[in-house]
Amino acid sequence: MKIGVLGTGMVGETLATALIQQGHSVRMGSRSAGNDKAAAWAAKHGADASEGSFADAADFGELLFVATHGGSTLHAIQMAGPDNFRDKIVIDVTNPLDFSHGMPPRILKEFQDVSLGEQLQHALPSAHIVKTLNTINSELMVDARHVHGGDHELFLCGDDLASKALVSKFLEQNFNWEAAHIRDLGGISLARTMEAIVPLWVVLYGHLGTGMFNYKIVH
Amino acid sequence: MKIGVLGTGMVGETLATALIQQGHSVRMGSRSAGNDKAAAWAAKHGADASEGSFADAADFGELLFVATHGGSTLHAIQMAGPDNFRDKIVIDVTNPLDFSHGMPPRILKEFQDVSLGEQLQHALPSAHIVKTLNTINSELMVDARHVHGGDHELFLCGDDLASKALVSKFLEQNFNWEAAHIRDLGGISLARTMEAIVPLWVVLYGHLGTGMFNYKIVH
Repeated sequence: MKIGVLGTGMVGETLATALIQQGHSVRMGSRSAGNDKAAAWAAKHGADASEGSFADAADFGELLFVATHGGSTLHAIQMAGPDNFRDKIVIDVTNPLDFSHGMPPRILKEFQDVSLGEQLQHALPSAHIVKTLNTINSELMVDARHVHGGDHELFLCGDDLASKALVSKFLEQNFNWEAAHIRDLGGISLARTMEAIVPLWVVLYGHLGTGMFNYKIVH
Repeated sequence: MKIGVLGTGMVGETLATALIQQGHSVRMGSRSAGNDKAAAWAAKHGADASEGSFADAADFGELLFVATHGGSTLHAIQMAGPDNFRDKIVIDVTNPLDFSHGMPPRILKEFQDVSLGEQLQHALPSAHIVKTLNTINSELMVDARHVHGGDHELFLCGDDLASKALVSKFLEQNFNWEAAHIRDLGGISLARTMEAIVPLWVVLYGHLGTGMFNYKIVH
């Protein structure tokens, strides 16, 4: 499958590399084509790996991952050109965190009432935003079995049922998430609850000394 | 031990009843002495159970629980008289949730930047606020073994180390929380992260059809 990954940070790179390993063709997008990190990544991962601008990556992908910094995501989408997202499934893994006031991080002011996931859907009305994977670290995103044999929870939300079903299947087949642990919370407004739990994750990461953990719901 | 419980809702009543069952003397406080629910509760639970105003309960307790509605907590504290909290440990189980915009609930505007736990500490500078128990339902608060044999997490924070140690011991001895599962996140500013995860809890409560669940951290 042709997949575009917007963002060249640790999350974008981990996703892009795992997708190549799963046999997909991946284009990594950044602010401008030829970005050092994106070019180095593409050179390392063979013919199925390419890089370009945000617009190049969005145009290329049949499926898109948005893995940009939370605070610059809406700008990145505008740079990518909203038309390049038309009718596509867009997996939103971003977090609008604000570390400028120290620890614990806050949610950026502009996303406190209306989440980044919701604002992304609003900016791309003809795309199907599915928010997921944002509550865990990137190594765990791409292989659920890294923690407790995969026996822990992944939250997911979005307005389009068919898109959520496809994303769930994709996560199961590519990243080893068991269907029973993929918790569909509801429409994209639920992105609010998923973004809100990430500051606690950051604090626990500091306490536990590792990002390789997750929550399991117990009864 | 003499314990004051501020609040007559489900959380206050569950806490107060469990504390009586553990052999403590408990005074339930409300807006005005003689509140119907508080009087009925006191009549039902024998000589160790009493009721009165917020000020009566705060004055009575050597240890205090604040279990009022989030949005009216700071007003309740003023009614109780800040001097009645001097040098006392105050266990804050409140949540500043706003259901007025529908589901999922939001955090009330006035507590988005500075949490209710922090504002409570600020309003009661001579008391030791320990925020805990707010992330689970009230039946589970008072007996951790109701879920998965007690093998799941309780978050806690506060500025005073000695108070946190005493509260942890209290929760272990009275409510069956194992020390290894009581996660001390840090100072009272961490209350922000603990209040922020409650909207997700409300959503999961709806999906799971029960409030008898919690998170276990897995590695």
